[in-house]
Amino acid sequence: PPSGNQFRSRRVYGKCVAAPASAEKLSTPDPKDHSTYNAADNVMPHPGLRATASSPEAGGKDKSYWLMQPIYSKEYVESVEPHHQVPKAFFEKAGYYGVQAMRSLFDVATGYGHQMTEERWLRRILFLETVAGVPGFVAGMLRHMRSLRSMKRDRGWIHTLLEEAENERMHLLTFLQFREPGPLMRGTVLLGQGVFLNFYLLAYTISPRTCHSFVGYLEEEAVKTYTRCIKDLDAGLIPQWEKKALPEIAIKYWQLSPDATMRDLLLAVRADEACHSHVNHAFSHMKPSEENPFLPGTVHVP
Amino acid sequence: PPSGNQFRSRRVYGKCVAAPASAEKLSTPDPKDHSTYNAADNVMPHPGLRATASSPEAGGKDKSYWLMQPIYSKEYVESVEPHHQVPKAFFEKAGYYGVQAMRSLFDVATGYGHQMTEERWLRRILFLETVAGVPGFVAGMLRHMRSLRSMKRDRGWIHTLLEEAENERMHLLTFLQFREPGPLMRGTVLLGQGVFLNFYLLAYTISPRTCHSFVGYLEEEAVKTYTRCIKDLDAGLIPQWEKKALPEIAIKYWQLSPDATMRDLLLAVRADEACHSHVNHAFSHMKPSEENPFLPGTVHVP
Ligand SMILES: [Fe+2]
Ligand SMILES: [Fe+2]
Ligand SMILES: [Fe+2]
Ligand SMILES: [Fe+2]
Repeated sequence: PPSGNQFRSRRVYGKCVAAPASAEKLSTPDPKDHSTYNAADNVMPHPGLRATASSPEAGGKDKSYWLMQPIYSKEYVESVEPHHQVPKAFFEKAGYYGVQAMRSLFDVATGYGHQMTEERWLRRILFLETVAGVPGFVAGMLRHMRSLRSMKRDRGWIHTLLEEAENERMHLLTFLQFREPGPLMRGTVLLGQGVFLNFYLLAYTISPRTCHSFVGYLEEEAVKTYTRCIKDLDAGLIPQWEKKALPEIAIKYWQLSPDATMRDLLLAVRADEACHSHVNHAFSHMKPSEENPFLPGTVHVP
Repeated sequence: PPSGNQFRSRRVYGKCVAAPASAEKLSTPDPKDHSTYNAADNVMPHPGLRATASSPEAGGKDKSYWLMQPIYSKEYVESVEPHHQVPKAFFEKAGYYGVQAMRSLFDVATGYGHQMTEERWLRRILFLETVAGVPGFVAGMLRHMRSLRSMKRDRGWIHTLLEEAENERMHLLTFLQFREPGPLMRGTVLLGQGVFLNFYLLAYTISPRTCHSFVGYLEEEAVKTYTRCIKDLDAGLIPQWEKKALPEIAIKYWQLSPDATMRDLLLAVRADEACHSHVNHAFSHMKPSEENPFLPGTVHVP
């Protein structure tokens, strides 16, 4: 894996400072030398710290910041398959054709076609995942701000939306371990985010329903893409991935076995995408004031 | 408590759908009648659902969406007191004077002075809390987007920033149970958010360090305000709050005893603010690429 993206173990894990605050301790020794200000020395973990899937309380593993961890069974991930919700309402048609237009653009930009090499797969996946992390966080922020200014409760949507955004960012960080993007790709990603972020902010302000439908269909495409990728791998078309070891970050996040393969990773990612599609289709049919029916950590599609 | 802000228990808690996906099930019966589309029927909780402080796995209580729950001991909340970090670096001075300017504006707008009535306290607190929820979420989103486009890990900041934003929103939702804001207040909040949100987005893009310092000092003011409020209450100046019952949402969030008083609530909120101040002062002295030293759920100031 390229350096700079490595999964580093936490430095200050479990550090406890029992003494109460003193003005002395909080003040910085030298305001210009930030490296000597050891924030960790001023931190005490909360005594009622809750257990998460990766916390020491729950099995002696690293404490993590993940909002949720999607942990699947082999049977479940194998059972996931492309699914299509026929667009009926107007907002569904808008979402569907929006995705089709964007997909054509994407196919050209990433060189998607019959002949896919390892390099092309990675280029496509990396591009997709830099975009995929945008909608969930934007929607979460807009709902947070709306809750503040309208002084009404959110009813649980924000957490699920942020889980989605984080999950997509984990896809990106995982696949980055297989390829260090060049300057051309970085430039395109920069430009792409600038356009898409502003577009989505505006679109979600105007019609959250249409935006959720859009993401629902976008994720249908993602499930299709990963399904084809798995088939190509099984057909021996991506020989480089057949014996590839998985990066630590992926093994930790999906709690895969240390000898898990690229195929296991693709299966897990596909299952994530199926979940996003399902959740967003469901959200698109709900009023923004309705209660979120998805529990935190929900990742299995019915 | 005013209707519309009530803490409703979750409708679909623990609902399990074991059958695998079928196209039939996901399609909407009638795209125009959104109320008949029961998203809950399509949801299955993740089998590895983690336990949170309020989950059934952790004590038979409601499943919640909270990123963290600040649960304090009586001794700890009583020990919190106003704290001032002397501004030394330029970004600290910018943050400090920014807060002083904003505070003067606020004092006039909310009628803060020697003679504080229950109504005035609520007006001030509600105003403060609609603004206080903005910085954490904005910073979290900007770091998320930066991670996506620069293809680098976040190193744990986002979670802590979102915890802060959610915590502030919980302050707002709690105090709203004591006062239904009128149209004048709603209008001011709307306008205030429009200005502050855009300002903060821009400012954080330019200098995250200065923004964290700004929040550090803003929260110092919040600790001062709540400290005075507690003193006023103790001195018998807010008689309406002496026997006020706490709303369910507050008792659940801070895990207070059912007979907890307004004083207990103010103590808990003040402890939250002290935590925000400490965390943001610490962040202001770190490089954005440094690892977050605060564990998830950290709320105790050293
Ligand atoms: Fe993804
Ligand atoms: Fe996705
Ligand atoms: Fe607050
Ligand atoms: Fe605060």
